[in-house]
Amino acid sequence: MPEPVLLVLDSDPSPRLGRLTGRVGVRYADERSLATQLPLADVLLVWDFTSDAVRAAWPGQGPRPRWVHTASAGVDRLLCPELAASDTVVTNARGIFERPIAEYVAGLVLAFAKDLPGTLDLQRQRHWHHREGQQISGSRAVVVGAGPIGREITKLLHGLGVRVALVGRTARRTIHGPEDLDRLTARADWVICAAPLTESTRGMFGARFFGLMQPSARFINVGRGPMVVEGELTDALRKRWIAGAALDVFQEEPLGPDSPLWDVPGLLISPHMSGDTVGWRDRLGEQFVRMYELWADGQPLPNVVDKRRGYVPSPDLNQGDAPRT
Amino acid sequence: MPEPVLLVLDSDPSPRLGRLTGRVGVRYADERSLATQLPLADVLLVWDFTSDAVRAAWPGQGPRPRWVHTASAGVDRLLCPELAASDTVVTNARGIFERPIAEYVAGLVLAFAKDLPGTLDLQRQRHWHHREGQQISGSRAVVVGAGPIGREITKLLHGLGVRVALVGRTARRTIHGPEDLDRLTARADWVICAAPLTESTRGMFGARFFGLMQPSARFINVGRGPMVVEGELTDALRKRWIAGAALDVFQEEPLGPDSPLWDVPGLLISPHMSGDTVGWRDRLGEQFVRMYELWADGQPLPNVVDKRRGYVPSPDLNQGDAPRT
Repeated sequence: MPEPVLLVLDSDPSPRLGRLTGRVGVRYADERSLATQLPLADVLLVWDFTSDAVRAAWPGQGPRPRWVHTASAGVDRLLCPELAASDTVVTNARGIFERPIAEYVAGLVLAFAKDLPGTLDLQRQRHWHHREGQQISGSRAVVVGAGPIGREITKLLHGLGVRVALVGRTARRTIHGPEDLDRLTARADWVICAAPLTESTRGMFGARFFGLMQPSARFINVGRGPMVVEGELTDALRKRWIAGAALDVFQEEPLGPDSPLWDVPGLLISPHMSGDTVGWRDRLGEQFVRMYELWADGQPLPNVVDKRRGYVPSPDLNQGDAPRT
Repeated sequence: MPEPVLLVLDSDPSPRLGRLTGRVGVRYADERSLATQLPLADVLLVWDFTSDAVRAAWPGQGPRPRWVHTASAGVDRLLCPELAASDTVVTNARGIFERPIAEYVAGLVLAFAKDLPGTLDLQRQRHWHHREGQQISGSRAVVVGAGPIGREITKLLHGLGVRVALVGRTARRTIHGPEDLDRLTARADWVICAAPLTESTRGMFGARFFGLMQPSARFINVGRGPMVVEGELTDALRKRWIAGAALDVFQEEPLGPDSPLWDVPGLLISPHMSGDTVGWRDRLGEQFVRMYELWADGQPLPNVVDKRRGYVPSPDLNQGDAPRT
């Protein structure tokens, strides 16, 4: 039997495949060569998860890999109708990014509450100016997106004394359905987006939504950029409909130096780094190696994406309709 | 019986004395008039807790108030040998500042771990530059000062997954004694000072101490400025003995525009605000009103300072030698 072929849509630094060395034929593709190499691959590892190349190349000619793994939580850049309709299994990097992102969100919430950006500005001006902070204990947050990232954010904020409402696609147990979102938003101090980008979440945070928020409230997006209508968030901040916002993800990444977003008042911009803590690439590589060994052994894969929905359903919370993985 | 006289060492805004209105003769002093008014007062409320006026005026002529309350956690600006040796009861504002300060420290730890200052700098330069953050879960902190503020910091950081060692004046139960400090410091990622300023803590954080810390570690002071030898902290940062520091308190406050501290690399400066959240002055006023009612009623006062030690001992942790309050 020929050695299976693992195709890696690569980015620098390349994945360290550790124990797989010599057990699989590894080929590397970039965005341009992906289409021609796809028919040769049994497995595709989407290591460059910022690329749209899979969606562009997939509808082409010839056999397709039986399994596609992406080294990211979101699969929005990957899924095209042809891949969704195919028998190819798609998996994601669930388990790697939850805690780092939850810490990042807690850090943003505390930075806003204690006006850390103002403190750094005043320091540059060598100006001692005492202000009053806010206590986050007892404040209210809405977390949109009830997947593992949204649930970890909820857990961490709850531990800091924040009263958190978690909103998912459907109401179940302790999770609110979308029908509660407006009511919860209207009295929240913090609205945090950690949902997957799907056709039903695209553009969901626009003028109507920001108009519901309290003038003292802040909006944080660690999900995907296209869920936010950036121009309407900018307007909401300039008109002081809301007190602040932090975006870690954008319609177009990287954000160019000419983007009007950089100097919107009250807007904190970070370069899609909320989930990336020292060693993250090693953890992503190790996770893929473990999953490859299961696959080569004929075992079921974890983290299988429901390609119709566009994310990995949470079996523990949604037993009725989760696929068996 | 004449109405008791409450003397307030005032600052703007004055305390709202609520229910005491009409039940006590209130007089207001500033730093200059304090000495002449002290003999008339039954109770002194040190509302301007940034002033050294009590220490300067106390050794003067005539009767002294029987009770002095300070609207602060620290009593270092207040205590002089004559007050310490007197029968006057001194109380502090224990209970007001713990949670805000613990949140502030958690915010600083997360801001350092996620390089939020770097993110804000890059935003001003309109420059997208991805970096890797640190995960604080699993990192190690040493909290110096086992009073209610240090214990609240410990609780909050522990909830975020940080492994925290708490160091107090004497070893007891889960609290380390000073003999463990060097060993714990040498492997800590975060060293947090929340101790009272006393003769044994003055200047304790200097070159020798910073030399023990890891090059990747950060130092945070939310206690009192004179515990840190500022010039030696500056040297340690410039020589990269440690990766960063945040000071909320200083040898001299406010820090003047000419202070060399403002632009020390890796040093974050905030204007003694860690405990001050919206409504803090009202909470301090309400606390004093409740305590005054106990005092007028002949009841024992809470938050009584051990004037020899310079802080309120924690009866729940230190039952052997805590005074009954």
